[in-house]
Amino acid sequence: MSSEADPGAAGFWAVIPAGGSGTRLWPLSRAGYPKFLQDLTGDGHSLLRATFERVRPLSAERTIVVTGAAHVAAVRAQLPELPPERVLAEPSPRDSMAAIAWAAAVVERGDPDAVIGSFAADHVIPDAEAFRACVSQAVDVAREGLVVTIGVEPTHPATGFGYIQVGHRLPGHASAARVRQFVEKPDEARARAYLATGEFRWNAGMFVVRAGTLLDLLAQWHPVLAATARAIAAEPDGLAERWTTMERIAIDHAIAEPAADIGRVAVVPGDFEWHDVGNFATLAELLPHQGPMAVLGDAEAVLALESTGVVAARGGRVVAVLGIEDVIVVDTPDAVLVTTRARAQDVRAVVEALGARGHDDLG
Amino acid sequence: MSSEADPGAAGFWAVIPAGGSGTRLWPLSRAGYPKFLQDLTGDGHSLLRATFERVRPLSAERTIVVTGAAHVAAVRAQLPELPPERVLAEPSPRDSMAAIAWAAAVVERGDPDAVIGSFAADHVIPDAEAFRACVSQAVDVAREGLVVTIGVEPTHPATGFGYIQVGHRLPGHASAARVRQFVEKPDEARARAYLATGEFRWNAGMFVVRAGTLLDLLAQWHPVLAATARAIAAEPDGLAERWTTMERIAIDHAIAEPAADIGRVAVVPGDFEWHDVGNFATLAELLPHQGPMAVLGDAEAVLALESTGVVAARGGRVVAVLGIEDVIVVDTPDAVLVTTRARAQDVRAVVEALGARGHDDLG
Repeated sequence: MSSEADPGAAGFWAVIPAGGSGTRLWPLSRAGYPKFLQDLTGDGHSLLRATFERVRPLSAERTIVVTGAAHVAAVRAQLPELPPERVLAEPSPRDSMAAIAWAAAVVERGDPDAVIGSFAADHVIPDAEAFRACVSQAVDVAREGLVVTIGVEPTHPATGFGYIQVGHRLPGHASAARVRQFVEKPDEARARAYLATGEFRWNAGMFVVRAGTLLDLLAQWHPVLAATARAIAAEPDGLAERWTTMERIAIDHAIAEPAADIGRVAVVPGDFEWHDVGNFATLAELLPHQGPMAVLGDAEAVLALESTGVVAARGGRVVAVLGIEDVIVVDTPDAVLVTTRARAQDVRAVVEALGARGHDDLG
Repeated sequence: MSSEADPGAAGFWAVIPAGGSGTRLWPLSRAGYPKFLQDLTGDGHSLLRATFERVRPLSAERTIVVTGAAHVAAVRAQLPELPPERVLAEPSPRDSMAAIAWAAAVVERGDPDAVIGSFAADHVIPDAEAFRACVSQAVDVAREGLVVTIGVEPTHPATGFGYIQVGHRLPGHASAARVRQFVEKPDEARARAYLATGEFRWNAGMFVVRAGTLLDLLAQWHPVLAATARAIAAEPDGLAERWTTMERIAIDHAIAEPAADIGRVAVVPGDFEWHDVGNFATLAELLPHQGPMAVLGDAEAVLALESTGVVAARGGRVVAVLGIEDVIVVDTPDAVLVTTRARAQDVRAVVEALGARGHDDLG
């Protein structure tokens, strides 16, 4: 294919794992209508659609979405440009490694040298061009047989993300460097210490790697997982039977961390604004404000007096908030949630308690 | 009438002023559906109906309700035992003195010696027998030409009520005493000082007095108001024209305070539990609890985790509250309010702000 016909990075495939029900964004996000299918920022696109459009100049129709069987129809409807076979339906959730390995194996069968980039369906990156410039550099580095991640410049000592310790620069690339280590989500004191060194970046969970490299590395540490992914790609009819044997593990633990230990991971610094829309506190950063109150939904329906926090008015009703700091109010047609920014990470407990009461319909 | 046919206190009339839209209980209470018409405690009766049943053994059908013209039909529907003419329709709100003076004048025309007792439609008194024993004593005292109030034993240094300073005992009555003075709502330090003296009781706004005495006293300080009330009672057709000339003043200021100054007010101590359902913080005291959370409405619909305060679930949806102290959440079909106990007194500001936005439909 000429570059006119396909302006993207030659042989580059985007993989978008679109899983998880977004429990911490309940009651907006539901198992049956998860956050990636929704416009949570009020910009007119779902998070999934925005992710697709962000990578599209690089991957064009070489994009694979891996999602739960229940969401395949919705994903295809939101991405009508995508050939239907590019939406892979997981029979059940098996965490990110299984999803990405499957997609990698599908790509590898067509082109063993193809480079894939995995990008979660629920991140927000306003400057898509800066993002693509990073990914393009990562693709170049990945062709040398490395796993390449994008390290986001930290703007504050966040405790909700893992961090990447950046090592020596990689010769021959604009800004890529070795990854010394991945570290887990720190407490705030440790996060401050990381930032003080100048060596740490946020781990945004983006990985760019040759499909074959990914599966070969996976085969070192999780041989059954790698072999099963390749077997499913070779014989799609065996999916249902084989899928249940897939190990549940995140790509960070399965590949990124052990590969860093053997010097096989590089990082390209990303200095763009990046948001992981994980909970209402992080979502609030992306929303328009009425004074000090972040508002999602019908701004006309929100009345915030002497209050701060975030109000989501998605229930078709007036939501009035008076004299309360750092509050989270989420109104939907069948459920309303009231909590605080400080407890935004714990909203899952509400969904679990509702489930225990038999309110699975609301989860 | 013999006491068999009418078991109440002979010649005693109950007057129930049922006005006000209960703005501080928005969005439960609305101008079109005020709190006194609602079951706010979950006991199966509206506040008005409970008030009527509380006085009924004393006054039987000698009960007069004074309410806004818009609520006459609803009041009659809730009190079907009451002859229709016993529901007086105010053309516009003119505060409590006008309402009570009108009712007093109506009673006076039939029996100048009749004693009336005025009891707000939005108070809650669980021990109705103890209440009636107090009122019976107050009726006896009132026959001597005094204005008699009921002084509720304070249980804490409340800042939301006025207080009554109790003076010397009245000879010939079980526990009645002179009122030395009425004092306005105090700050907390002053309220504590009042309680420390042992001389102060809460002013529950209940007044028992001969109809003629009330109007004669009123004529001393507000002659036009007294004359107009008597003129309306004499010529009901003149109501619309005369009503607009009625002075807007509360009975406390119009009669109780000046009458206390001339030694014409007595107090009967009431040691029963009494609640003025003025706002969500005071309402919470009356509600059943789920752990530390007071719940009104559908208890099954409320999920409170690590939270305290009050949740009113009247919107037909699940209300989940997580990790928030002293919160007030009021869910209704068309509006939801979130505030704190500390701001319960200020809910009126929300209604005013909605009105300023043109949301008069919700007020």
